[in-house]
Amino acid sequence: MEYVFSDRISSLAPSAIREILKFTADPEVIAFAAGNPSAEAFPTEAVAKIAGQILAENPISALQYSISEGYTPLRDALKSWMKTDYNIGTEGDDLIVTSGAQQAIELTCKVLCNEGDTVLCEDPSFIGSLNAFRSYHVQLKGVPVEADGISIQRLEDALKREKNVRFLYLIPNFQNPSGITMSLAKRQEVYRLACKYNVIILEDNPYGDLRYTGEDIPTIKSMDEEGRVIYAGSFSKILSPGMRVGYVVAPKPVIGKLTVAKQVSDVHTTILSQLICHRFLTEYDIHAHIAGLRTLYRGKLDLMLSELDRGFGGKVKYTRPEGGLFLWATLPEGVDMMQFCRDAVARKVAVVPGTAFLADESGSSQSFRMNYSTPSDDNIVKGVRILSELIAETIH
Amino acid sequence: MEYVFSDRISSLAPSAIREILKFTADPEVIAFAAGNPSAEAFPTEAVAKIAGQILAENPISALQYSISEGYTPLRDALKSWMKTDYNIGTEGDDLIVTSGAQQAIELTCKVLCNEGDTVLCEDPSFIGSLNAFRSYHVQLKGVPVEADGISIQRLEDALKREKNVRFLYLIPNFQNPSGITMSLAKRQEVYRLACKYNVIILEDNPYGDLRYTGEDIPTIKSMDEEGRVIYAGSFSKILSPGMRVGYVVAPKPVIGKLTVAKQVSDVHTTILSQLICHRFLTEYDIHAHIAGLRTLYRGKLDLMLSELDRGFGGKVKYTRPEGGLFLWATLPEGVDMMQFCRDAVARKVAVVPGTAFLADESGSSQSFRMNYSTPSDDNIVKGVRILSELIAETIH
Repeated sequence: MEYVFSDRISSLAPSAIREILKFTADPEVIAFAAGNPSAEAFPTEAVAKIAGQILAENPISALQYSISEGYTPLRDALKSWMKTDYNIGTEGDDLIVTSGAQQAIELTCKVLCNEGDTVLCEDPSFIGSLNAFRSYHVQLKGVPVEADGISIQRLEDALKREKNVRFLYLIPNFQNPSGITMSLAKRQEVYRLACKYNVIILEDNPYGDLRYTGEDIPTIKSMDEEGRVIYAGSFSKILSPGMRVGYVVAPKPVIGKLTVAKQVSDVHTTILSQLICHRFLTEYDIHAHIAGLRTLYRGKLDLMLSELDRGFGGKVKYTRPEGGLFLWATLPEGVDMMQFCRDAVARKVAVVPGTAFLADESGSSQSFRMNYSTPSDDNIVKGVRILSELIAETIH
Repeated sequence: MEYVFSDRISSLAPSAIREILKFTADPEVIAFAAGNPSAEAFPTEAVAKIAGQILAENPISALQYSISEGYTPLRDALKSWMKTDYNIGTEGDDLIVTSGAQQAIELTCKVLCNEGDTVLCEDPSFIGSLNAFRSYHVQLKGVPVEADGISIQRLEDALKREKNVRFLYLIPNFQNPSGITMSLAKRQEVYRLACKYNVIILEDNPYGDLRYTGEDIPTIKSMDEEGRVIYAGSFSKILSPGMRVGYVVAPKPVIGKLTVAKQVSDVHTTILSQLICHRFLTEYDIHAHIAGLRTLYRGKLDLMLSELDRGFGGKVKYTRPEGGLFLWATLPEGVDMMQFCRDAVARKVAVVPGTAFLADESGSSQSFRMNYSTPSDDNIVKGVRILSELIAETIH
């Protein structure tokens, strides 16, 4: 039998990332390609204790149907946390729980865009979000990222040039894949342009709490006076990605539509996960836990950077992130990036080819993404040394 | 600020069901409107024990990212169960885990239908599925349901008449909302017509294990020789809806596209939920557990039917389901169904107006849906007596 699929899904190509990631199932491969929290990052005893309490005290609450908006005490705790620590949320905003920030991103595109509408994004950007947008058959247009964030000139050019721009997708903090952080001045300028050209901003901030050096910079959402910013947050990088709990703060009319879309997507987010996040957020010291994560990952980033400084010999450039999970290395012109990534995997080190993160999938890239949260310290040293040998042999 | 939403979501009206369901937050209201498992139906001790074991033995496995297809041992256990007990699954099929059957249904529409394509469904049918289809801006065409299932003549008329029919959505067992079961002869005939007119069947079977009287009837999927049936199953009615674990069995090319769509939707289903379902399915006696559920719900259905037989006095007709969670009551012509439902809520009994379940939302209905799994036995008696008084006063 011949199967005919929708245009939106037929046009969604399996990504180059999968070619590389399938090798990472091999336990001998050093995984610089993933984006997983470190195994040391999970508060396993706290989660076990909380889950035990919930299932002993009120098991029905963890097993029965719940409401699409999310567990009300968790929503209230998140609203309070966001307002107190980040000045996020106004009278005109509301917050709902989603099945990871991925769902918030996918539903935002579903409720805002008709097929053929345009979405602007940083170039490169997170492949999971780009594929979510592609799955609604929108036009994806990338705007180059500079050392201090998206190019303002190129952004305004795109806003003037492109038709039916519905929203601008941004990861201002420790961007995936580049590790770059957008400066305060650029955040203010991006918001001004969004107002001028009447587009929505979707601000994705999964790594915001994971800053290892420098000063925190206000989110774009915290500057939002017009009700123009949709903010996606997540427990994935600060507690557990396997629980699939994220949240979205947005103007109430947008939240209303997102809730309808969420209801038809999965009815509600797993309620036991929500109950665990709620207790962890309200009964444990979330700030102390995050401080511990920062110490853990700062050590891993510093280790990787010092190994790169020693091993890459100036032949390969790389970003020096102030937080997050990723850095972005760029090979000199003339070197075949895809072949380099294949050679690295053959030597049991997996990195992600930069082409995976482009708005235009047929574009070219000299870069690759490296992750330092997943590998052990020993493997960071070993993996960078293997890549350094490959560079020494390949680039003269 | 004015918000502009996508056509697919703008056209999704808040359903009539919500008007009624909002009253059910009042604990004094007797809930015949919900579709929740009975609080007595949950194996709370087993789940608490399993969760404790998982979080003690291998907590990282329950907290880390997992793969989009689902936890492999759960997929294997489900494939084995489906094949052994229901003859579901061929060499050409595969199975993935979804975030409830709702996600399987929503993603099926996403991967099969372009906007404007036609989806055929039973009329009435499950509102959660109908809204999922509407959220992709498809044409929804209902085919009347008779006492032994969908009208074959009207189905063939629709298959001849409608353009671009991509799939036919069916709940053959104890249909939501009607409680009607499709006969074996009709299942065979439906499959023959699907082959003749080259359409896919989406078979939704959340209640299949909950048969209280009569003999099991083979699923349409078990007859599928051409690879034309997508089968959605769920743990929601046999273990826990709050965990959000469902699954879909379909031809491998369809599973491939569903997996891509699932990945952009929520990355993967909560892994702790999957681990719990896996242990419950493989280490506990699922057949004995389901037998217990049947006994519990058989008692509730019999109680409701005997109260209806006594109280409704032949003035209101209702179906006599052989399983599932719902029955379907129909008021005589001339009675205002919506007013009846509002009057019932005013007397603290909530039922769902039949219009909520129509393919054409502007259509009319004399029916309402009643659920017997959620209310206590006392409330079944009390609620039916209140409705009976209302009928005696309203219908002469």
